[in-house]
Amino acid sequence: MSFDLLVKKIKEKGNPSVAGLDPKIEYVPEYIRKKAYTQYGQNLKGASEAIWEFNKGLIDALYDVVPAVKPQSAFYEMYGLHGEEIMHRTIEYAKEKGLYIILDVKRNDIGSTAEAYSKAYLGRTEVDGVECDACGVDCVTVNPYLGTDGIMPFVNDCKKYNKAIFSLVKTSNPSSGELQDLISDDKHIYEKVAECVNKWNEDTVGDSGYGAVGAVVGATYPAQAEVLRKLMPKSYFLVPGYGAQGGGAQGVKPCFNDDGMGAIVNSSRGIMCAYKQGDWKEEQFAEAARAEAVRMREDLISVI
Amino acid sequence: MSFDLLVKKIKEKGNPSVAGLDPKIEYVPEYIRKKAYTQYGQNLKGASEAIWEFNKGLIDALYDVVPAVKPQSAFYEMYGLHGEEIMHRTIEYAKEKGLYIILDVKRNDIGSTAEAYSKAYLGRTEVDGVECDACGVDCVTVNPYLGTDGIMPFVNDCKKYNKAIFSLVKTSNPSSGELQDLISDDKHIYEKVAECVNKWNEDTVGDSGYGAVGAVVGATYPAQAEVLRKLMPKSYFLVPGYGAQGGGAQGVKPCFNDDGMGAIVNSSRGIMCAYKQGDWKEEQFAEAARAEAVRMREDLISVI
Repeated sequence: MSFDLLVKKIKEKGNPSVAGLDPKIEYVPEYIRKKAYTQYGQNLKGASEAIWEFNKGLIDALYDVVPAVKPQSAFYEMYGLHGEEIMHRTIEYAKEKGLYIILDVKRNDIGSTAEAYSKAYLGRTEVDGVECDACGVDCVTVNPYLGTDGIMPFVNDCKKYNKAIFSLVKTSNPSSGELQDLISDDKHIYEKVAECVNKWNEDTVGDSGYGAVGAVVGATYPAQAEVLRKLMPKSYFLVPGYGAQGGGAQGVKPCFNDDGMGAIVNSSRGIMCAYKQGDWKEEQFAEAARAEAVRMREDLISVI
Repeated sequence: MSFDLLVKKIKEKGNPSVAGLDPKIEYVPEYIRKKAYTQYGQNLKGASEAIWEFNKGLIDALYDVVPAVKPQSAFYEMYGLHGEEIMHRTIEYAKEKGLYIILDVKRNDIGSTAEAYSKAYLGRTEVDGVECDACGVDCVTVNPYLGTDGIMPFVNDCKKYNKAIFSLVKTSNPSSGELQDLISDDKHIYEKVAECVNKWNEDTVGDSGYGAVGAVVGATYPAQAEVLRKLMPKSYFLVPGYGAQGGGAQGVKPCFNDDGMGAIVNSSRGIMCAYKQGDWKEEQFAEAARAEAVRMREDLISVI
């Protein structure tokens, strides 16, 4: 019911990073795309099958380097049902390889609907008494805008099924401040959300010292990350914005606790498109991704 | 690029309401469930096919009474890929019947990811230059927590493809106030979000007088709705919370403008489970739903 499993996998790999699987079709090497279009057509099916080949290659090259992968649901939903299908396939494959799965869905809704989302990804779906797995992952991202009763269904399933969530707190995008940086009672809204995260996290702290409710804190705002690290000592941070979005290792340093734990840093494009940098050939995309994942690991370890 | 199409359909039907399609398997009449389990198994596939039969019956009974349907994505995602498949099937069927489709997904993310979500539901997905439809609907719900750059990709597709969005502003759930009611610069956060909605809506106002960016305003908070109606005169309101959540026709009245336009009120359980009230037989679920939709229409018309 906590992030113990993630912490274990981070320690095993000596690597506090997660490979984002946000596969736009433009990221996929041309030879894979052409082959898939020939076999399935240049359409949503063809694109999805090309993405699957790409994902599989990436997972094969990364599974002994990174502890976790983070598929971003949007980049599968945009390919319709075929995209959804290969998202499920990718999740199953990554599970087989022993990877921790953070599904980036940023879902949220009123209580009864949040419960349905939680069943979809963390819990189980009952069909007249028969329990079924819709798409079980280890962890999902959630949005806090609706307050406690939109989050508790997820927390309850974390407790019941040993799962975890990351709530948005301070996001990495340029306009994140419009709402998140507003001041109320001398506190920023992101600090108010951090207080909520602490409350939601309260009863879930495991042996690792971290609870089941983590926080998304962008690498692009290191000053805010420093404040938030102190505010939520028992919450794991999911840190987007390293690499392509402009945050470097120094930028993510404040997200870690003094013992080098407490944060997992995401890189999506940086790893997936590593083959487009330097002298790699397309066919070496997986090798390039692995090299970048290793470089990133060393970069992170050098600052924490 | 506005809500003109929705306004047209509301006027044609003389009915400012939308039927929510949030089909938990428990809502489906037993005879439909049993038949589906026999044919497909008591599993996610069987549940999904039962839900499809139910949805189809509801749409057949409602399409000449209501202008719009609102499938809630969570209640399909919880049945896995089979659930997703019948969500797509339900959307296609409702389109054929001329209904306006509001897909309730409450998506949001940083700009490049919001763009992917928008392509999935409002825009089109490019596969190396070939444009494809992933799951085209008329309108989606979005979450404002990431600010302008998480919303503009949707607004751009609204302009390009004549679509519309509803942004969460003041939600209907009990804990909505935890963040949304905080005060910053003498204004509630929901009022700050309303100011953002106005800004996003600016260049999109159509012949109906309403722009492409509407607001979700819960029927359970009529006092706040009154304030928000004045703050966002050119935004359509999507009003959840009527019926099962406790809001009545008087509660939704402040969401409408003086001309009786400006809001569309959702009922999900109230319509779907109408057959469980009174003397209906299970087999009459569609007839009961229709009767409830007609009753709701008259109830709403009596106050606006």
